[in-house]
Amino acid sequence: MILPPVPAPSPRTDSALVLAARGESVPVTPVWFMRQAGRSLPEYRALREGIPMLEACSRPDLIQEITLQPVRRHGVDAAILFSDIVVPLKASGVDLDIVPGVGPVVADPIRAADQINLLRPLHPDEVGFVTEAVHGLVGALGGTPLVGFAGAPFTLASYLIEGGPSKNHELTKAMMYGAPELWHRLLDRLADIALTFLRVQAEAGASALQLFDSWAGVLSRADYAANVAPHSQKVLTGLADLGVPRIHFGVGTGELLGLMGDVGADVVGVDWRVPLDEAVRRIGPHRAVQGNLDPAVLFAGWPVVEREVRRILREGAAARGHILNLGHGVLPSTDPDVLTRVVDLVHELTAA
Amino acid sequence: MILPPVPAPSPRTDSALVLAARGESVPVTPVWFMRQAGRSLPEYRALREGIPMLEACSRPDLIQEITLQPVRRHGVDAAILFSDIVVPLKASGVDLDIVPGVGPVVADPIRAADQINLLRPLHPDEVGFVTEAVHGLVGALGGTPLVGFAGAPFTLASYLIEGGPSKNHELTKAMMYGAPELWHRLLDRLADIALTFLRVQAEAGASALQLFDSWAGVLSRADYAANVAPHSQKVLTGLADLGVPRIHFGVGTGELLGLMGDVGADVVGVDWRVPLDEAVRRIGPHRAVQGNLDPAVLFAGWPVVEREVRRILREGAAARGHILNLGHGVLPSTDPDVLTRVVDLVHELTAA
Repeated sequence: MILPPVPAPSPRTDSALVLAARGESVPVTPVWFMRQAGRSLPEYRALREGIPMLEACSRPDLIQEITLQPVRRHGVDAAILFSDIVVPLKASGVDLDIVPGVGPVVADPIRAADQINLLRPLHPDEVGFVTEAVHGLVGALGGTPLVGFAGAPFTLASYLIEGGPSKNHELTKAMMYGAPELWHRLLDRLADIALTFLRVQAEAGASALQLFDSWAGVLSRADYAANVAPHSQKVLTGLADLGVPRIHFGVGTGELLGLMGDVGADVVGVDWRVPLDEAVRRIGPHRAVQGNLDPAVLFAGWPVVEREVRRILREGAAARGHILNLGHGVLPSTDPDVLTRVVDLVHELTAA
Repeated sequence: MILPPVPAPSPRTDSALVLAARGESVPVTPVWFMRQAGRSLPEYRALREGIPMLEACSRPDLIQEITLQPVRRHGVDAAILFSDIVVPLKASGVDLDIVPGVGPVVADPIRAADQINLLRPLHPDEVGFVTEAVHGLVGALGGTPLVGFAGAPFTLASYLIEGGPSKNHELTKAMMYGAPELWHRLLDRLADIALTFLRVQAEAGASALQLFDSWAGVLSRADYAANVAPHSQKVLTGLADLGVPRIHFGVGTGELLGLMGDVGADVVGVDWRVPLDEAVRRIGPHRAVQGNLDPAVLFAGWPVVEREVRRILREGAAARGHILNLGHGVLPSTDPDVLTRVVDLVHELTAA
């Protein structure tokens, strides 16, 4: 009798991250950290020395090395592609730079219809460096899944309209409230760009995709529902045929958690302001959750970190699946050894 | 027959602001704006030319003039004392400055027990300039009430620990989680300073007092309840004998609204992330509410502003009393004429 060949394990089907995202049983609660590839690591700072951010994000060798660094060091259950949410904008022709100590700076902030019309769709070839980096990463990572990501239309719009990071988003909201036709045209184009960028990553081999709506928490539920949700939904539902889990995350989104799931996410990211069991109630029992560890807690000494990890694991058990993560990105001055200890603790406490 | 003398109307008992705060019937829904005394006004910018912020906050003539400017211009129903939350810290001996474009900068950030021990109580004489300014203002304002204010212990602690404005409050939270004994000692001292500063203002004639916990929204409900609420409660309950309404406000505090009332507020300030009727449900029917107009909405054109004001008035009717205000301070680039129109609209729509 000839047995059919046993398929090799694949991070797309067999990794703890993907299993948790699908609500299937996991060998261990998967753990990774937003911004794990970045400034908290001395090996990252050494590698980036003298290399501007956007250059680092466009060189496949650097993308790969920086993406791999935290996997090697911490033993996390997922890699997150080293990139920036403005990369697909830059690639599609928007004149912008990432200025150290400031963030993205847009040369010609978008305020009028003719500027929106100039915003072109992204062609996959324009991010060929990402395709190349992901191809290499999938080989190098073996069974560890790679999470691809993009900025959500609202957050991208805020950068483009304000011209850079904004505390109050007043110009963004002025367009949203005062010029709805322009607003929806802009967000629709940004949804297309985000969708293309995410599809490129999945088609190159990413095992999961995260849509970051960093600033969505500055909106009320009604404004989010009317002005943002349809565009994020276009992105997330446009990924459905790929069969990779879709994670949707923003900071300060306690009022929006249900909606952020309903627009087409398999996993909803939760910051630390809402306890994870309450977040599960808001999101509903049919989706997985990710997050909830306050990145500032990592500064409070190990007993506090351990107590919080235990709480989050306990509360996360109420969800369809739970991926342990921070409630926001790793802060630059974080001690990386604490991150490694968190990974070890999560694995120790949850190993089946 | 000799009639008893009719007492003159007093802003402490007869103003729309105080009546609304007490849940009594009002001639008109009172309206004022956080940061109305400040950078949105050309007359303010002219007056401040060449005068550092902390100097302006310590000269009774300037405090009075800047406090009166928006009352004259907009016809608001309350003045807010021109000051800064760090003024009582500076007065009690903390070495700090307010740096243009940065905010408060503390020379020697508080990280250890010996530094906390150096934090002295505030003596009323150390803010004699505030007493003098308030005395003059009460006369100049006639029937218009003056709102005094102070920063809440948590927000003051964040400035002192971080050394200035902070995005992530990681050192603050590290002390809160990791060194609870130090934390509570520090917050207890800050509560005493805030309480003294507020009592000085009320005793000099302020008709209402607002405790600003600008950063409280970065905390979960459990952390706020355990680590912050007792100290804010000390401040608010320590004002009870004065008989002036106490307003309690923070940004992004949707999860905390009930607690922020329960620690001893007559009025809870609400930002724009939670609709006002939902905020009333969270706060309970026995307190008044203030706020809810997104300061960014003022940039969206008049039809949008009018629609939002009408919504907020409608939703605020569910509360025991409603003071119309922004959900955060006036943004510097706000057109002051829009503020004036908001005042006129609120009065027109609500005049009994």
